Amino acid sequence: MKVEVAALQLVAVPGAVEQNLARFATLAREHAAGCDLIVAPELLASGYDLELLAAEGATLAEPLDGRTATLTSELTAELGATIAVGLIERDGDDLYDSVVVVDPDGTLSRYRKTHLYPPEQERFASGDRLATVATPAGRVGVMICFEHAFPEVAMALALAGAQILAIPSAVPYGYEHLLTLRTRARAQDNQLFTVASNLAGDVFCGGSLIVDPRGEVLARGGTGDEVVRATIDLAEIEREREREPALGLRRPELYGGG
Amino acid sequence: MKVEVAALQLVAVPGAVEQNLARFATLAREHAAGCDLIVAPELLASGYDLELLAAEGATLAEPLDGRTATLTSELTAELGATIAVGLIERDGDDLYDSVVVVDPDGTLSRYRKTHLYPPEQERFASGDRLATVATPAGRVGVMICFEHAFPEVAMALALAGAQILAIPSAVPYGYEHLLTLRTRARAQDNQLFTVASNLAGDVFCGGSLIVDPRGEVLARGGTGDEVVRATIDLAEIEREREREPALGLRRPELYGGG
Repeated sequence: MKVEVAALQLVAVPGAVEQNLARFATLAREHAAGCDLIVAPELLASGYDLELLAAEGATLAEPLDGRTATLTSELTAELGATIAVGLIERDGDDLYDSVVVVDPDGTLSRYRKTHLYPPEQERFASGDRLATVATPAGRVGVMICFEHAFPEVAMALALAGAQILAIPSAVPYGYEHLLTLRTRARAQDNQLFTVASNLAGDVFCGGSLIVDPRGEVLARGGTGDEVVRATIDLAEIEREREREPALGLRRPELYGGG
Repeated sequence: MKVEVAALQLVAVPGAVEQNLARFATLAREHAAGCDLIVAPELLASGYDLELLAAEGATLAEPLDGRTATLTSELTAELGATIAVGLIERDGDDLYDSVVVVDPDGTLSRYRKTHLYPPEQERFASGDRLATVATPAGRVGVMICFEHAFPEVAMALALAGAQILAIPSAVPYGYEHLLTLRTRARAQDNQLFTVASNLAGDVFCGGSLIVDPRGEVLARGGTGDEVVRATIDLAEIEREREREPALGLRRPELYGGG
């Protein structure tokens, strides 16, 4: 099955929720028409600024059916695409670094980041389960930014049937090499597609990328607002797994020690 | 601790045991003097040719204290280096795709490949445990060729204390991208050093490489006989793990499903 995927990257101004959401909508409408799956960055509406979040996190947070979800549902219906996008989710007194995945029919799924980067641990509660979502664009597994560092997370999602790993991110300059290598490695490890969408601007390095099951980069973004696109064929997953059948040859009984 | 490591790659002629071992010794003596750790390819003495092994595997195989180990012990004493090298190990009626790690004092450790590439399963029995070895050059974990495809193998070795993953290989042309990406990914996943030594020649693509804990390639070989060297600092492992503390933030209780 051929699927048109996009990594929508943008400069999100910390605290400027209206402006960030408006820019997101404009980019999606102007540059992501015809896409089946659009992945947007981590904490898109609020921007990513842990200092600001210490002071205003509760204000910038949203319930699951808040501003980001409402706008995203409008966009998915309008564009006929599934969209994955990051937000600060408020649930009672807890804040989560979450991603919602919204289908064209409005079905909403949520993933709460389970592996917080250490400075994030003071701002957010941790999720307690991994998530894959069946969408019209294929089964999508969600990882958020730093979670690309954990091969076992990607593998658990692959074993749960994920065909595409959507990785909303906020990777700063100085870590470009990790964004690239990990996005490529997680795809090749599990012989599936990865779509990493990163924040851009002065702090975050952009460079969103789409990677195929061989670990090859299909498309890569620059350092500003951009929709990075590629047409992928989900049948490549099975073809590559037949060539290199590593997933089926795991021996978990050995991995307890060396 | 600064350690001089080498990936010794060579063209091993299938079945030409004397010639292959002689070439190995010459390369080590002429180009690996001063090294603390030398990694040589998979099945070095016999060469890697599964057709030939079907007919002559039992003849080309060695006991653990056979020709390869005897020569390697001479070389380790002479050069003051630890050497990891691949051979066909015979144990009763079983043949194993093994690597011996020999210290300068002659201490010999063995690893039997636990994840055989499918065509190898008709030729070899599988090992039943992973292995790290304490050597004067640091704690070395051993993976053999296709095992670089398994993030969990490298992680188990890292969690068992490995500082350097030695990866004797026989990767053919057409798979260069996997040799490079996987050797880089396993290093970066676990923030340690990897030394992949590959067979060279008309069938096997050479391109041996040494990678640092950031996943950056420090040195890479061409397509012929060559000793690829780099000076590494084992203290970089802890520095990189402090910067990116992924290993300490694993949540294995979540990896059962997604």
